[in-house]
Amino acid sequence: MDEWFSHTVRVRFAETDAQGIAHHASYVVWLEEARVAHLAAVAGGYTAIRERGIEALTTGIELTYERGAAFDDVLIVRVRCAEARGARFRYEYVVERDGMRVATGSTRHATGDASTHRPIRVPAWLVDDLLREPGLPSAPSSVSP
Amino acid sequence: MDEWFSHTVRVRFAETDAQGIAHHASYVVWLEEARVAHLAAVAGGYTAIRERGIEALTTGIELTYERGAAFDDVLIVRVRCAEARGARFRYEYVVERDGMRVATGSTRHATGDASTHRPIRVPAWLVDDLLREPGLPSAPSSVSP
Amino acid sequence: MDEWFSHTVRVRFAETDAQGIAHHASYVVWLEEARVAHLAAVAGGYTAIRERGIEALTTGIELTYERGAAFDDVLIVRVRCAEARGARFRYEYVVERDGMRVATGSTRHATGDASTHRPIRVPAWLVDDLLREPGLPSAPSSVSP
Amino acid sequence: MDEWFSHTVRVRFAETDAQGIAHHASYVVWLEEARVAHLAAVAGGYTAIRERGIEALTTGIELTYERGAAFDDVLIVRVRCAEARGARFRYEYVVERDGMRVATGSTRHATGDASTHRPIRVPAWLVDDLLREPGLPSAPSSVSP
Repeated sequence: MDEWFSHTVRVRFAETDAQGIAHHASYVVWLEEARVAHLAAVAGGYTAIRERGIEALTTGIELTYERGAAFDDVLIVRVRCAEARGARFRYEYVVERDGMRVATGSTRHATGDASTHRPIRVPAWLVDDLLREPGLPSAPSSVSP
Repeated sequence: MDEWFSHTVRVRFAETDAQGIAHHASYVVWLEEARVAHLAAVAGGYTAIRERGIEALTTGIELTYERGAAFDDVLIVRVRCAEARGARFRYEYVVERDGMRVATGSTRHATGDASTHRPIRVPAWLVDDLLREPGLPSAPSSVSP
Repeated sequence: MDEWFSHTVRVRFAETDAQGIAHHASYVVWLEEARVAHLAAVAGGYTAIRERGIEALTTGIELTYERGAAFDDVLIVRVRCAEARGARFRYEYVVERDGMRVATGSTRHATGDASTHRPIRVPAWLVDDLLREPGLPSAPSSVSP
Repeated sequence: MDEWFSHTVRVRFAETDAQGIAHHASYVVWLEEARVAHLAAVAGGYTAIRERGIEALTTGIELTYERGAAFDDVLIVRVRCAEARGARFRYEYVVERDGMRVATGSTRHATGDASTHRPIRVPAWLVDDLLREPGLPSAPSSVSP
């Protein structure tokens, strides 16, 4: 999965539950943290997107848990934007520990006006940014608003 | 949706985010709270199930967000166990506010041994309990362990 | 503690940790939920206060944990506003289970302009509301803005 | 504050609230994360302590908030164990952003038997570890159990 962006999280004690493993809601927050880190790497970050008048709303989430994660485990969240068109984009995730899959998931998002939250198309510069490989330079469209 | 069980939550301030609405991870916790309340109504509660040697693990979740929820909103979480067979069961949810749908979702679960977490079939008494209508008495199988 | 306001919470599974008890950060959220319920009982609620141009910021918290709380425990959070003067007010809390003390705490707050967050004195109508006994009618000052 | 240990956190979007700043309960989790990192640096980590039969319970917390923290802010949590005697120890914290103080706090802890949670004295090797400067080698007492 070379084209994926990798983000590392370490399981906090507060994120565990009485089953002795990370609570299943914690993963939702980790996916978001990885998505934010990906956006920072490819599109100048979530704050920069908002400053250009775009708000990104989460419209769906799906997670499959394959293994438990324990306190202090170091997890790699692999993340990529799999699709961006119209006023929607979708992210995919694989959570791993020591090369073994712990969970997989995806999130769906809608772009809206940052003030009114009314849907607006994902701008071309953002589509380019979301779908390009992290580490490659932005297309010119993303630097000239 | 008469056969569904209803559980009420009020959006906590701590559950909101800087978009001014309830964070999308908060719903995962509300679904769990509703599921726990349903289990208490039909099967003597999660603690009772564990005391009979059964642990329920969450193996998947899926949520679609249709509207934002604001601080102090009163939400009704409608919940039912939609399926229980083998070592798996599945719950469905509809989150509403003032009769309007805010979100829908489902969760998947596996039953395991409470000590070893190794998969074991959902016992017949639990299948009966999970799938019966809340408010009806337990089948005899569920009161005689 | 007859003049205290009582608010009930039930420990969520997501609020427990790998020690098998409610995580100590969960209490901070319960105190807030109790404070919000107290504000609703005496001062028309936090939202009403904000609509009158006042924002309440949390400037300090202090908690002493005396006993653990387990999943599904029903806890009574007793709460009162102990002091309100200048641009500050202070709340006190006692968390109980079955009449036994589980934790005690206090929070400090500052009132500010709802838009700029700059400090402003706690208005007289709010002082009256905060310090009066829940269940008694508001002083006239609080109904005529 | 040269003898303090420094731990970095970045404010997650899920940790903000509808006031647009990090919710005050989020700091409790950051202090814990910094404390765990300090324990890893001086005493082989929380897990190692538990494996030697010692459980650390949180018995109190105190936080003073001086400035708000926004989404994506990078915060330095400075942390040290200020005192360890009998069956108790105490940590102190300063949270900073760009060299400015955002919050200060302290937590109190009790050591207990890892199985029964009954109080036991903080062992000499742990006192030595807790109070020594991070980066210095462990005293011999801490490497020979």
